Amino acid sequence: MSAKPDIVTAAVLVIGDEILSGRTKDKNIGYIADYLTAIGIDLKEVRVVSDDAAAIVDALNSLRTKYTYVFTTGGIGPTHDDITADCVAEAFGVALEFHPEAMAILKERLAKTGGELNEARLRMARIPRGAALVANKVSGAPGFWMGNVITMAGIPAVMQAMLDEVAPKLKTGTKLLSETIRADAKEGDVGTELGAIAKAHPEAIIGSYPFIDEKHGPNTNIVVRSRDAEKLAVVKAEIEGMLEKVKAQLSAVR
Amino acid sequence: MSAKPDIVTAAVLVIGDEILSGRTKDKNIGYIADYLTAIGIDLKEVRVVSDDAAAIVDALNSLRTKYTYVFTTGGIGPTHDDITADCVAEAFGVALEFHPEAMAILKERLAKTGGELNEARLRMARIPRGAALVANKVSGAPGFWMGNVITMAGIPAVMQAMLDEVAPKLKTGTKLLSETIRADAKEGDVGTELGAIAKAHPEAIIGSYPFIDEKHGPNTNIVVRSRDAEKLAVVKAEIEGMLEKVKAQLSAVR
Repeated sequence: MSAKPDIVTAAVLVIGDEILSGRTKDKNIGYIADYLTAIGIDLKEVRVVSDDAAAIVDALNSLRTKYTYVFTTGGIGPTHDDITADCVAEAFGVALEFHPEAMAILKERLAKTGGELNEARLRMARIPRGAALVANKVSGAPGFWMGNVITMAGIPAVMQAMLDEVAPKLKTGTKLLSETIRADAKEGDVGTELGAIAKAHPEAIIGSYPFIDEKHGPNTNIVVRSRDAEKLAVVKAEIEGMLEKVKAQLSAVR
Repeated sequence: MSAKPDIVTAAVLVIGDEILSGRTKDKNIGYIADYLTAIGIDLKEVRVVSDDAAAIVDALNSLRTKYTYVFTTGGIGPTHDDITADCVAEAFGVALEFHPEAMAILKERLAKTGGELNEARLRMARIPRGAALVANKVSGAPGFWMGNVITMAGIPAVMQAMLDEVAPKLKTGTKLLSETIRADAKEGDVGTELGAIAKAHPEAIIGSYPFIDEKHGPNTNIVVRSRDAEKLAVVKAEIEGMLEKVKAQLSAVR
């Protein structure tokens, strides 16, 4: 690969007191991380903030200027603590308005499930001016896409359906390929040599992740990532050669 | 309670490419959230950043000036991608030095487990000048406490042991008490009335969390939080009264 790889970046903004209090355990960050990596978008940052307008607006403005996309989860339901739409409108300096299509979706849904389009439910039809709706095949009430910010629900099944809706429309970059090498050695025994390889190959990202091997005790997974398959193979081979050598030395000493 | 409650705040900074790539699913955020809530510290923000020095230093400096404490997880092992100690030193503008006690701990540990105190392992004895060590009863290599930043390991069992070490020394505030009320109603059916109660009681934090009830379908948990037990009881009773009334009206209509 000689052309410069395309790099598309993203941040996730999780909105909700319930995550910060520990009451609800987030299941969206890991899902979105896997999803974006698989389609060629680099997740660079995640923030979790409380249901506080100033905190949400600050985070939105900080993240949307730094990354290609910002995905928000949570805070788009029918209750007073659902203020994400208000905050996105404020961050972009646009009005928050009742969206005719969103109202039609809510009415159609309520005709099936029962319930009235009361003040609370109408909150879910308030969309920042200029945003496009993101369909919600699970429970009706839509998310929306405003500028480079994609606002999704917090309930995992709904968030996942919304991500499926927007994914085909996202700009994607050259995928970061990865290879995992099980070292069968302690991290501290191979770290010096691994650091030398990392320094010699700044174009590859090399991570080292210790884990406890039920059979052998402390062990290490080395993960090499690169957008270039050839470079990935070269660095992987170099690490495998290094591991052979270091382990031979260690067994000769011990 | 007439005295003003003490409020102690915290942020968590998760450091690691492996969380952002989706390869590793974070298990520390929820654990720390529960832990801090239980001891009277309000977790206000979480950030996840990659193994990138500028990103880590920026996040540290942003968070440590905003909250009482910052807890970091990850990046304190023996390999080249473990740069948290370097970044904490840089954020505080202090030197990163070999810490005699940390070296003694590593040596003692290696005497038991085998292995040499090589260049890689020596990385784990580099501590920002002025920081206090945080003992690691699981695997030896210590964390550290610098200013209001507490740097812990990323491996959950080690992080948890370190949190147990520092907890008795943390300043804690008046606990945020909470009550959960199962509405047995759809969020959209009770949202308007719940919003009115929230507006009338700004001293209580009222959250509304929809869930799917296996038996009855869409349901809602309403969570009331306050540092004052009496106020909590008053608001809880008001919400329960409202729920009775709204549900009676709904069943009369349908």
